[in-house]
Amino acid sequence: MASPAKSFVEVGSGNHFPLENLPYGVFRPSEGGDPRPGVAIGDLVLDLSVIAAAGLFNGPLLSSSTCFSQASLNAFMALGRPAWKEARATLQKLLSVDEPTLRDNAPLRAKAFFPMSEVKMEVPAVIGDYTDFFSSKEHATNTGTIFRGPENALPANWLQIPIAYHGRASSVVISGTDIHRPRGQTTPPTGEKTPGFKPSGLLDFELEMAIFIGPGNELGSPVTVENAADHIFGFVLMNDWSARDIQKWEGVPLGPFLGKNFGTTISPWIVTLEALEPFICEAPVQDPAPLPYLTETKRTSYDIPLQVAIQPEGETKASVVCRSNFKYLYWTVSQQLAHHTINGCNLRSGDLLASGTISGPEPGSLGSFLEQSWAGTKFISLEHGGTRKFIQDGDDVIMSASCQGEGFTVGFGECRGKVLPCKPY
Amino acid sequence: MASPAKSFVEVGSGNHFPLENLPYGVFRPSEGGDPRPGVAIGDLVLDLSVIAAAGLFNGPLLSSSTCFSQASLNAFMALGRPAWKEARATLQKLLSVDEPTLRDNAPLRAKAFFPMSEVKMEVPAVIGDYTDFFSSKEHATNTGTIFRGPENALPANWLQIPIAYHGRASSVVISGTDIHRPRGQTTPPTGEKTPGFKPSGLLDFELEMAIFIGPGNELGSPVTVENAADHIFGFVLMNDWSARDIQKWEGVPLGPFLGKNFGTTISPWIVTLEALEPFICEAPVQDPAPLPYLTETKRTSYDIPLQVAIQPEGETKASVVCRSNFKYLYWTVSQQLAHHTINGCNLRSGDLLASGTISGPEPGSLGSFLEQSWAGTKFISLEHGGTRKFIQDGDDVIMSASCQGEGFTVGFGECRGKVLPCKPY
Repeated sequence: MASPAKSFVEVGSGNHFPLENLPYGVFRPSEGGDPRPGVAIGDLVLDLSVIAAAGLFNGPLLSSSTCFSQASLNAFMALGRPAWKEARATLQKLLSVDEPTLRDNAPLRAKAFFPMSEVKMEVPAVIGDYTDFFSSKEHATNTGTIFRGPENALPANWLQIPIAYHGRASSVVISGTDIHRPRGQTTPPTGEKTPGFKPSGLLDFELEMAIFIGPGNELGSPVTVENAADHIFGFVLMNDWSARDIQKWEGVPLGPFLGKNFGTTISPWIVTLEALEPFICEAPVQDPAPLPYLTETKRTSYDIPLQVAIQPEGETKASVVCRSNFKYLYWTVSQQLAHHTINGCNLRSGDLLASGTISGPEPGSLGSFLEQSWAGTKFISLEHGGTRKFIQDGDDVIMSASCQGEGFTVGFGECRGKVLPCKPY
Repeated sequence: MASPAKSFVEVGSGNHFPLENLPYGVFRPSEGGDPRPGVAIGDLVLDLSVIAAAGLFNGPLLSSSTCFSQASLNAFMALGRPAWKEARATLQKLLSVDEPTLRDNAPLRAKAFFPMSEVKMEVPAVIGDYTDFFSSKEHATNTGTIFRGPENALPANWLQIPIAYHGRASSVVISGTDIHRPRGQTTPPTGEKTPGFKPSGLLDFELEMAIFIGPGNELGSPVTVENAADHIFGFVLMNDWSARDIQKWEGVPLGPFLGKNFGTTISPWIVTLEALEPFICEAPVQDPAPLPYLTETKRTSYDIPLQVAIQPEGETKASVVCRSNFKYLYWTVSQQLAHHTINGCNLRSGDLLASGTISGPEPGSLGSFLEQSWAGTKFISLEHGGTRKFIQDGDDVIMSASCQGEGFTVGFGECRGKVLPCKPY
């Protein structure tokens, strides 16, 4: 894939947001104002409401659309891939070094660009429903082994179903939001009947990625696995914070609830499938073959290297604790989407579908402390000092991802959140 | 509690919507137009957008509010109990036989009233998140016995935790919406490894009630059990349609997903706590005593008789298959709400919290066919002919509820849905 021309906006080597990326987000200027859609370019944010108001989205699908004058990306997401391609072509042209329209219009540039360090990012869509899958075979095997032993590691249905549950939409927060340690009930101590009740002692991260849904589907009408990609707007990083002690005591028979719904952090910039095209790779071979409704004629995934680092309170350096990759996932996003709708369940624009913890087969690729400490039975050494079994108060958990292209980087920025002590109650 | 004056709107004996009730909903006139809030009175719907535009909400909290000129009740729900009480007082006065303002203004009456049979009801709120509890001890014991045997009937945590899971908000539909039988994977036949894949053969109803949340809470800040009622706007009936075969195969380890999220039906009229005050009763004694954060100084519930009937395709009569009561629930709505937020999880106005299937101790009070047919091992006789183990295509499932006061009825109307065959795929 040929690179587009360079941008007149300076983009340093290794910067996550060159002209090849152009991820979408929603931001407020630091001086205040309503949330509005933006695109990241280098160290700047381009205000799409300004570009739209200036009449520069002049293609047939967007010239009369109000999708960029809204406080969320839902309307733009709903337009579908032809409109997304038109927006990308318009923006790549507008931002290119050879195009004078914006480059040479100083008053418009002054209105349209904001330093990224001076804006406040927001959750980019009104999330109607948030679904969390469980699509890493390594993660499912590890947690199954921990909780049920090696002989029953994978649940009986796991190789047939992209297992998922509904999570909480209200507590999805944007990167940089502090997370208060949750309190709750825990399993009664041995020999006792009364549960514990305390701040979670086993707070964990889960390294995930998530897609935002573009056009939805009608209730009763499934999306086929072959058409699924047309319903996917793009990807973000996600930290599915998990309180293992609360989760364990509450989880049978109806699954995760308070162990998860106190907070879920996402990265602010949605990287589109168009930007990820250079990083398409083969998806893992599936054995047994899935049922026909989950069978893809061509199984592809994305080669997206992922990283998790922990920066304890007062430390200046973050210690990397995990290096994984999106490509390890056994179930693809198209399979997830086809499964989610096979019973007629309707998805809506702005819905969030997460991957589940992305653990891999390599050493160092375990996507949670639960797995790394093997349920707290061993210490994890931090490279810049200290050890952990689970997350401590004051720890900043920093996820990041970037794909290295030929002469450019397509990155996701960071998904970070600091754990604060449990609030008084 | 003294009854208010009678209304100038005729309300027949046994009608669910006298002046004592005044439930809120959202409707469209049959001739078209935007959805708007309304109140049921007798066989009529009063258009609250018209009443507000006429300046008749003239109390201090509502006179300058735009909450009744919106397409959902979320804004009104967010205002909280003082505003709800003001609205109720205004409406009871406006509709009373002694008050000329509306009674004697024929042009305003012509604009403000619609025959209930000629409006289309809508889901009354934008539901940010929908949570389903599991709060009937009888239902939990029955399903536990069916799936795990009598010695492990109640899960170990059940007497300590108001167990719940997150359901799907997108597929909550209003009474009268047809439900297509879902298809999906089912447990592999004995001796085989490949799952079944077919229209559900074990489609069921679940008799539930649900609350809409009024004012929400901030992320990180729990609602106490004593303050919980201030966050509850009112109640509706709910049918939590369930495909037992899909549910069984997918459910371990993360709980219900496609077995539930193909459709959830609610009744259109939200009955407020004020209307239910005459029907407050004691809640069941809890043994063991719950943890302090779930301990109520006074345990109350509501005496709301519930009924489920089945009307097969082509039949003129519906056969009652269940008579239960909201008061049977072991965990109260205040306990549900306190538990839901104890980890800091935030609720938002318009969120929906359902009770779980309401089964009782009496014969005939089982709130699902799963329990009535004991997992399909015996037939249920319909009083007007025919038998069932689960729901057949063409069956109309009709839930209703009404509370008998002294000289008046506070009812919920109906929550109904007809099952259509699985759509071609």
